[in-house]
Amino acid sequence: MRILILGGDGFLGWPQAMYLSQRSHEIFILDNFARRHFDLEHGSNSVVPIATLHQRAKAWHRESGHTIRFRVGSAQNYSLVAEIFRSFQPEAVVHFAEQKSAPLSMLDREHAAATIHGNVDSTLNILYAIKEFAPDCHLIKLGTMGEYGTPNIDIEEGFLEVSHRGRKDTFLYPKNPGSFYHLSKVHGSYTVKKCCDWWGIRATELNQGVVYGANTEESIVPELQTRFDYDQIYGTALNRFCIQAAIGHPLTVHGEGGQTRGFLNLRDTLRCVELAILNPATPGKFRVFNQFTELFSIHDLAERVSATAREMGLKPEIAYLPNPRVEAEGHYYSPKNSCLRDLGLEPTLLSQSVLASLIELAQRHRASIDLDLIRPSVQWNRTLNHLHS
Amino acid sequence: MRILILGGDGFLGWPQAMYLSQRSHEIFILDNFARRHFDLEHGSNSVVPIATLHQRAKAWHRESGHTIRFRVGSAQNYSLVAEIFRSFQPEAVVHFAEQKSAPLSMLDREHAAATIHGNVDSTLNILYAIKEFAPDCHLIKLGTMGEYGTPNIDIEEGFLEVSHRGRKDTFLYPKNPGSFYHLSKVHGSYTVKKCCDWWGIRATELNQGVVYGANTEESIVPELQTRFDYDQIYGTALNRFCIQAAIGHPLTVHGEGGQTRGFLNLRDTLRCVELAILNPATPGKFRVFNQFTELFSIHDLAERVSATAREMGLKPEIAYLPNPRVEAEGHYYSPKNSCLRDLGLEPTLLSQSVLASLIELAQRHRASIDLDLIRPSVQWNRTLNHLHS
Repeated sequence: MRILILGGDGFLGWPQAMYLSQRSHEIFILDNFARRHFDLEHGSNSVVPIATLHQRAKAWHRESGHTIRFRVGSAQNYSLVAEIFRSFQPEAVVHFAEQKSAPLSMLDREHAAATIHGNVDSTLNILYAIKEFAPDCHLIKLGTMGEYGTPNIDIEEGFLEVSHRGRKDTFLYPKNPGSFYHLSKVHGSYTVKKCCDWWGIRATELNQGVVYGANTEESIVPELQTRFDYDQIYGTALNRFCIQAAIGHPLTVHGEGGQTRGFLNLRDTLRCVELAILNPATPGKFRVFNQFTELFSIHDLAERVSATAREMGLKPEIAYLPNPRVEAEGHYYSPKNSCLRDLGLEPTLLSQSVLASLIELAQRHRASIDLDLIRPSVQWNRTLNHLHS
Repeated sequence: MRILILGGDGFLGWPQAMYLSQRSHEIFILDNFARRHFDLEHGSNSVVPIATLHQRAKAWHRESGHTIRFRVGSAQNYSLVAEIFRSFQPEAVVHFAEQKSAPLSMLDREHAAATIHGNVDSTLNILYAIKEFAPDCHLIKLGTMGEYGTPNIDIEEGFLEVSHRGRKDTFLYPKNPGSFYHLSKVHGSYTVKKCCDWWGIRATELNQGVVYGANTEESIVPELQTRFDYDQIYGTALNRFCIQAAIGHPLTVHGEGGQTRGFLNLRDTLRCVELAILNPATPGKFRVFNQFTELFSIHDLAERVSATAREMGLKPEIAYLPNPRVEAEGHYYSPKNSCLRDLGLEPTLLSQSVLASLIELAQRHRASIDLDLIRPSVQWNRTLNHLHS
C-alpha cells in the first residue's frame, strides 16, 4: 500500500515508517525537522543519539533492502502537501506532523499561537489535499487521550450517547483539553469529523495514551534508533523516572501523583496504526479508537520504576514537587479501549524487563543527561519570558 | 465603566458602541476594517450606505455630546492589543473582532485557514492581555447558537449534565459546528473556558442567534446607520427575503426551509451585551448565555415576509433552491434562553411593523441592490476557485 507519513522523522514517525516499510508498504515521509529544531533552540537532546533522516534512510536500505523515500518540508505548506498527494497518490496518510508538547504550548502567547496554527494548518492541508487529489485516501490522525481530560464518567471511544429530558442523541465525546496543545487537538478532532461529513473523507482518529519504549524490532543498528526524551517539554514522567533512577537522582513526582493516564508500548503504537491502515474506515466515516493498553497513576509509575531500580542494585528515592499543571490529582478514570483489541492488538505490557531496559539505556548514555532540562519551569498559571528563566 | 469594543466598526460593534456611550460608559474601539475590506474585495455592499468610522465618531459627538475613541488596527496584533489594555485599563471588553461568515470560511482552504487563524489569534490575544495587564477585566465573547448545531435533545445554556452508566459529570455542551467558521467559534469557547480555569479570568459567552434589524435608538442621523447586508456571504436569510420582496424577486429558500434557528432584534443584542456587562461573571467563572428571543424556520420567515409584503401591496413569491450547505432540513430544535431574561431582557419581537420597516428600507435603497451577490455559489461539499465563478 502507498502510505504517506507526515512527521516521519519524529519519535513515533520514524519507527512507524520502518515498521510499515518492513511489511512491504511503499513509504513516503514528509518532515520539516520541527522536533530537531526545538532541541537546537533550547539546548535539549535525546538521551540516545539519533542519526539524521538522510543517514536513517540509507541505513534502513542497507539493513533491510527496503526503500523509504522522503521530502524535507512542512505540512503547513499547502503547495507542497498538494504536490505530494498529486504525485504519490497515497492510499493512507498517517498524520504525526503536529506540535505535541503541552508544556511548550503553555510557555507563552507565541508558543500557544504557533502550536495552534501549526496543528490547525497541517490538518487542514491534509484534508483539502485528500479532497482534491486523493479522495479515497484513508486519514489516520493521531489524537490523544488527553483530549478527554479526566471526566467523572466512563470515557467511550470517541462518541457518547446522551439521554436528556426524555430524548437521545449521540455526540463527539465532550472534551476537556488541559493545555493549548490539547485545545489544538480537540479542534483537529472536530475538523476531521466535519470534513468526513461534508466531503465523504474516510478517517480514523487514534486517541493515544502516553507512549514508552525506545527500541523496536526494526531498530537493529544504532543509526535506526528513535528518540528518547526526558526534558520538561517533550519528556514523559516515565522517561524522567528512568533517567533519574539511572543517575541516582530522586524520582520527581509533580503534585500528589494520583493523576492516572493510559499508557502503551511504542511497539503497540506501530501495530495499532497498522491495524487502522489494514482495516480502513468506510468513505465518509469518522472513526475513533482509544489507543492505550494499561492505566497507571504517576505514583504507581514511580513505585514501579523504583522497584525495578532496586532490583538492579540502585537506591532510588521519590520526591514530590509542586504540580506545574492545573489538573486533578485524584479523580475517576475509566476509559474504554476495545476497538483496537477487537482488530487484533495483543498488548505488550509494562514489565520489569521493559523498565530495566529503559534504565539501562539511560545508564549507557548518562553522559548526555542534563538535569537542568528536567526541572518544570513552565507553569500553567503564569507566563514565562523564556524557558531557562 | 471603561469598555473596550473590538470590532466596534462592524454591524453589531458600532451600534453597541453608541448604545453604551449613550449610557455614559467610556468607550474605546479597535477595528481593522476587515468587514469593509471584504466589500472592496468582492464588490459587495451594505444596502444602506454607511459612513466611515471617522465620520461616525464625529457625528456621534455632534449629536450626543459623548465621545467614542478609536484606534485603527488588528486584534490579531498582540503588541497593539497589549498596549491598549495597558493604557486604557478596560473593565469590560466586548469581542466582536471575528470573521463571522460561515460561507466565507467554506470558500476554499485559504479562507478556512484565515478564518480560523484570525479568530484564534484575536481571542488568544485578548485572553493574554487580560491576564497580563487587566486581570479583573470581564470578557464578553460573542459566540453563536450555530456552535450547537441541531441536536436531538434540548440545548442548555453552555453546559450539559450527563448521566452515563450510573455516574454523572457536567461538560461544556457538546457542539456540532457546521462550517470552518463554526469550528473556530467552538475552539474559542473551549479556549476561553480553559483560560478562566487556569488564570482566574472572568468571562461571559453570548451564544447569539441570527440578528435582524438595522436601526437603533441611537442611529438618529444617516451617518450613524449600521450595515444592512444581503449578499450570500454576509447576508442572512431574513435580510435576503426583505430585499427580494422589496424589488419583486422571488424569495429564495435554500433547501426545504425546515431549518429552524434562534433570532433576535438588533436592539435586543445591544441590551443583552449591556446586561452581561452590568452583571459580570465572578473571577475564574466562564458563563454562557443563549442570546435569542424567538425561533423560526426558514420557511416560516419566508411566509412572514410574504404576508407583510402583501399587506404593503407587493406580490411576493417563494422559490426553493438546492441547499448549498450540508445541514439537516427537518429537525428537533429546543434551545433554552432564560439566563438573559432572568437578568432583565424584555424581548422586542419580530412584528409586521419591523418587517415592513426592513422592506421599506430596502425599497428606499433599491438602486444599490445587486442581485448577483445573492446567488449561493459557495457550496459546502466542493471548493470554488473564487466567489464569482
